[in-house]
Amino acid sequence: MNETVLPLGFQYARVATGVKSVAGTRDLSLITSDRDATVAGVYTQNLVAAAPVVLCRQRTPTRRGRVVVVNSGNANACTGEQGMSDAVTMAVAAARAVGAEEDQSLVLSTGIIGQLLPMEKILAGIDKAASELAAGTDAFDAASRGILTTDNGPKTMAAEVNCGEASFQLAGMAKGAAMIGPNMATMLAVFLTDAPLAGEDAQRALKDAVDVSFNCISVEGHTSTNDTVLLVANGAAGSDPLAGDDLQLFQQKLSEGCLQLAKMIPDDGEGSSHLVKVEVLGASDDEGARRVAATVANSNLVKTGITGCDPNWGRIISAVGYAGVPLETARLGLELNGITLFKDGGPVAFDAEEAAASMRNSREVHLLVVLGNGPGRACFWTSDLTVDYVTFNSDYHT
Amino acid sequence: MNETVLPLGFQYARVATGVKSVAGTRDLSLITSDRDATVAGVYTQNLVAAAPVVLCRQRTPTRRGRVVVVNSGNANACTGEQGMSDAVTMAVAAARAVGAEEDQSLVLSTGIIGQLLPMEKILAGIDKAASELAAGTDAFDAASRGILTTDNGPKTMAAEVNCGEASFQLAGMAKGAAMIGPNMATMLAVFLTDAPLAGEDAQRALKDAVDVSFNCISVEGHTSTNDTVLLVANGAAGSDPLAGDDLQLFQQKLSEGCLQLAKMIPDDGEGSSHLVKVEVLGASDDEGARRVAATVANSNLVKTGITGCDPNWGRIISAVGYAGVPLETARLGLELNGITLFKDGGPVAFDAEEAAASMRNSREVHLLVVLGNGPGRACFWTSDLTVDYVTFNSDYHT
Repeated sequence: MNETVLPLGFQYARVATGVKSVAGTRDLSLITSDRDATVAGVYTQNLVAAAPVVLCRQRTPTRRGRVVVVNSGNANACTGEQGMSDAVTMAVAAARAVGAEEDQSLVLSTGIIGQLLPMEKILAGIDKAASELAAGTDAFDAASRGILTTDNGPKTMAAEVNCGEASFQLAGMAKGAAMIGPNMATMLAVFLTDAPLAGEDAQRALKDAVDVSFNCISVEGHTSTNDTVLLVANGAAGSDPLAGDDLQLFQQKLSEGCLQLAKMIPDDGEGSSHLVKVEVLGASDDEGARRVAATVANSNLVKTGITGCDPNWGRIISAVGYAGVPLETARLGLELNGITLFKDGGPVAFDAEEAAASMRNSREVHLLVVLGNGPGRACFWTSDLTVDYVTFNSDYHT
Repeated sequence: MNETVLPLGFQYARVATGVKSVAGTRDLSLITSDRDATVAGVYTQNLVAAAPVVLCRQRTPTRRGRVVVVNSGNANACTGEQGMSDAVTMAVAAARAVGAEEDQSLVLSTGIIGQLLPMEKILAGIDKAASELAAGTDAFDAASRGILTTDNGPKTMAAEVNCGEASFQLAGMAKGAAMIGPNMATMLAVFLTDAPLAGEDAQRALKDAVDVSFNCISVEGHTSTNDTVLLVANGAAGSDPLAGDDLQLFQQKLSEGCLQLAKMIPDDGEGSSHLVKVEVLGASDDEGARRVAATVANSNLVKTGITGCDPNWGRIISAVGYAGVPLETARLGLELNGITLFKDGGPVAFDAEEAAASMRNSREVHLLVVLGNGPGRACFWTSDLTVDYVTFNSDYHT
């Protein structure tokens, strides 16, 4: 990542708290803004939301954000009132450690469910992190690793938003690779920008971006208790909040950035051998298209067929049929990696070996489903389902 | 199965048509009633319904049913207008072969999707079957095997409905073991009774029975294009249609019979090592309870946890949370095989080894989820997810 593309006014640190069992693992990241920032948040739909999610939901959107603290190894979920109190204590400590006011911090946690946070370790870690804050890519990259659990590696992006006279930087970090190592998963992402954004604009931009990215991926369809995406906009590179075309451009760059990180999650999915893009066209609306795409993406039969590099259109068409979305049977169609398998409601002759080879020779598989003539469309990304996934998730013992 | 419990007035046959690739496999079953029978049907919700489903849906409920013909090896699904024409031809042939009128037959198919039926073989098979019809358990058992695809064995039940002065017999056969062997699956069931039933009573009784049985099971949540359940009531053991308490008793026995066969399907699920019963109590209504139970049952993380005999309550509680059904977090509870893992919204101490042993030592695992104080309740059955499932479904090539 090029030094020049990081947004102005942010500092980062990553320290070891001792929460993760491997000694010395730096499992806590701290991110600060040098001035009050607009912070927007989008959170899990799981009704059993973790304490840090409850806290962040209360605090966003805000125009006074200064600190984001993320710990990995313990999700502070299903921890009752003590867990809620611990999340607040963690937030207060992070704010005090950097000289901010108590309500200017956001807290994210990921890791084991149902265990209370070891608060002494967490609080000592926060103080240590505050003393090690630094700007620059090394510090940013370190922070992006402190939030990981079972990921194979960090997931980051950076982009420039060029608004003619002014230009702004956007950077993001994410974690997530399925709810694999049991209770050890979740999807977290934090986006930082030096663009100036009004609170409601930031919130809407983030929600729209998440809808077409993090809400369009799955590994096994399991929604975690802790999923959180934050956008922190400190305005260090501008003064008046973005509006009009500039705001729209920012929105577009944010959506691209979200999608870039979101796709890395199923690509890193436990044991996966393919990243599968399911594209649906011709639905009566986008939401219907999304439901069909998600149903196909979450079908174990579709996934295992792709694992085996088998162009098994019957499994895919059947999954389309039970998504519960109206379709024009006589217009139903399917392409796999550009090869037509099903058209106008019926199977067509195709070279099965060519289709199979196209799957064997590429990590990414593209399914294109045509439902009819409507304007609705959607894309959804998932991983395939392998023996390794089952082995990992059934061998693990709590 | 005891000879005396079969309903009066039915005959059965099973013959080889040559549709299945293994030579000599008897892949077509014929069932006839010696008089006009009330026939009710419940069918797949998949919008890509196979031709025989379209035909049966048009013909039920009827009071004039005489013949049910079932072929395995080819589902006659995704076969367009030719497939629809073939289903009608098959129905006409079955009716003529037994001296019934052309609209008195029902057709069920299961097997490969997207290939036209080899009609010469099917029609020859129907004629041969008609010449071999016989009553009795041997013939019934044979017919129950002719409908199988990847099942490990036949699935049958028989029961008496004792209405005081009159008594009636109910017998059923089913097939289904997941949409495993690719495009080779589906759930079919045919129930036969010599009780007299009015058409609308039979239809309502069957729908209610299916709702709490075949609609409460899954292997991988994939709804086939061909799922069909028929009830054939020929009244050979009575005259006036059942009403009042007698009808209610019949309804109860039918529900029990449906559940008995339905549970055999996930128990026979591809590669499964456990039959999992998910029971949900305390929802605001039964439908909410069913959605929560289905969500837990279809979670790959829950399934793989059970495969590994791990009492991983975090995965289960998390799945409960994303089912989209309101719950009282402070009342949320979970028992596994009678052992309390989670109570009043928080984890409780339990003997993990005892819980694990209870799973290792029993093929059936019972999860009991308490959502709150409401009257809604449901049960759902599923299989666990093993390496064998993935291997079978990814190694298969179309």
